[in-house]
Amino acid sequence: MLTYLDCMPCFLKQALYTARLSTSSLQVQEEIMARTAGLLSKLDFSRTPPENATPVYELIAEISGCKDPFAELKKESNQLALDLQENIRDIIKQSDVPLFTAIKYSIAGNIIDYGAHHDFDILDTINKCSTRELALNDYEKLCEDLNTAKKILYLGDNSGEVAFDSLVIEQLDHQILFAVRGKPIINDALLEDAQFCGLDRQCEIISNGTNCPGTPLSRCSTEFREAFNQADLIISKGQGNFETLSEVRAPIYFLLSVKCPVVARHIFENTGRAVENGDMILLKATA
Amino acid sequence: MLTYLDCMPCFLKQALYTARLSTSSLQVQEEIMARTAGLLSKLDFSRTPPENATPVYELIAEISGCKDPFAELKKESNQLALDLQENIRDIIKQSDVPLFTAIKYSIAGNIIDYGAHHDFDILDTINKCSTRELALNDYEKLCEDLNTAKKILYLGDNSGEVAFDSLVIEQLDHQILFAVRGKPIINDALLEDAQFCGLDRQCEIISNGTNCPGTPLSRCSTEFREAFNQADLIISKGQGNFETLSEVRAPIYFLLSVKCPVVARHIFENTGRAVENGDMILLKATA
Repeated sequence: MLTYLDCMPCFLKQALYTARLSTSSLQVQEEIMARTAGLLSKLDFSRTPPENATPVYELIAEISGCKDPFAELKKESNQLALDLQENIRDIIKQSDVPLFTAIKYSIAGNIIDYGAHHDFDILDTINKCSTRELALNDYEKLCEDLNTAKKILYLGDNSGEVAFDSLVIEQLDHQILFAVRGKPIINDALLEDAQFCGLDRQCEIISNGTNCPGTPLSRCSTEFREAFNQADLIISKGQGNFETLSEVRAPIYFLLSVKCPVVARHIFENTGRAVENGDMILLKATA
Repeated sequence: MLTYLDCMPCFLKQALYTARLSTSSLQVQEEIMARTAGLLSKLDFSRTPPENATPVYELIAEISGCKDPFAELKKESNQLALDLQENIRDIIKQSDVPLFTAIKYSIAGNIIDYGAHHDFDILDTINKCSTRELALNDYEKLCEDLNTAKKILYLGDNSGEVAFDSLVIEQLDHQILFAVRGKPIINDALLEDAQFCGLDRQCEIISNGTNCPGTPLSRCSTEFREAFNQADLIISKGQGNFETLSEVRAPIYFLLSVKCPVVARHIFENTGRAVENGDMILLKATA
């Protein structure tokens, strides 16, 4: 999915949020905003939104000197999600469709995203999730493909959310490789977050080799690209992974909460299936 | 009120909305957005938001060649407001406090603003207004000051809204001068809008001499500044006028719907009186 004009005000909003997390100096915040605007004046619309967001976050880190402004928020969301894990595991166990229930909770967990949304109540969201339908639901196709797949590449998204991904992985009897970002970017899960949430005791963890809040294959490490090509099935969590992979021909299932009207429109234009901001979706790739 | 960092994403959002109204060419829209971002990278934070918005709209007009992209929307809102006028006049007549009721409707009419909000339902808003309280209400002070005032300068804001201002003016027994913008800017009322809504049959109309969506005195015409200084009382409609006059020492009453959290915060910081986005207020100037 390429960058839309609508992404520009959103980048600037994200920059301001991140600037304020990175420094308390109004002067530095002003410099960040001015130089981000300068960067946006040369935006490359042939790239995906996460690819264009990457230099924005790099610039903020360079100006403020703060390399991981979301560090505290990531720790908090990891702990919060872990605290909820046992309850949700019980709900999954008691469900008639444990895998589907686990997936639904992990999509709800995708709401933990400081890039697109700054205010959310995870507990409230998780509770509401149990009663909501998926707006797009390719679960039956996923089950079919899981029957024949051996190697699964699971693309993680945010910190905290990985604790819910862990519950999905518990339901799978496959060889699973769990991918995280290579360097701090927004609140996206790194190796340390996956480890904190216990993923390293369930499966192998791999870095995608980038500091992009998504999976832009051409910028990923050779090791990661090999894993991507060798996977029989790819589970892709979140908007950033969707935005960077929506045009890639691969056996991908996108699991995400739709957080912006631009992504909703893109899904509609590419699938003919209407979704709205806030919808939870499980979508088989059609590229 | 000076420009806040939060205004920057909002300027870019306004630019996109205006770009799309001004041209259907995606290429021109991209150029508008890129050059607006460039402009924002050199923003002057010692100026008010409407003063900083002015060159953004000038740039869009220059690039697109469209001098008045809101022309159709202005005509529509004028007609819509005129269609409602007779009903509201009846409600005012039947009210125990006709002037207060007229003021309340004119503040509700201030919701007609394409700069800050792009989606609104004027009919719905006007209906809800009749049951809502003003969040800040200096009406008694206004009545006191009206008792001694002779010359009133009434600063108009948006097209459409002027038809509601007309109903306030009907309740006043003073020498009234009604001010409009000097050139097209967003959907702000010009002489032709005031005339269309019949204001010219009630009072004298004056241009403030600028294309700024507010009243930046240093940029206004000498004639307007004289009128401003000679007025015994000034009724200022809307956020743009508030943002440019909030630090000016003058006998001003601000009547507006609060449309952004930045203005809400500014009011709280300057008056100690808490207001929220969406609140309708009648505030005596304290500068």
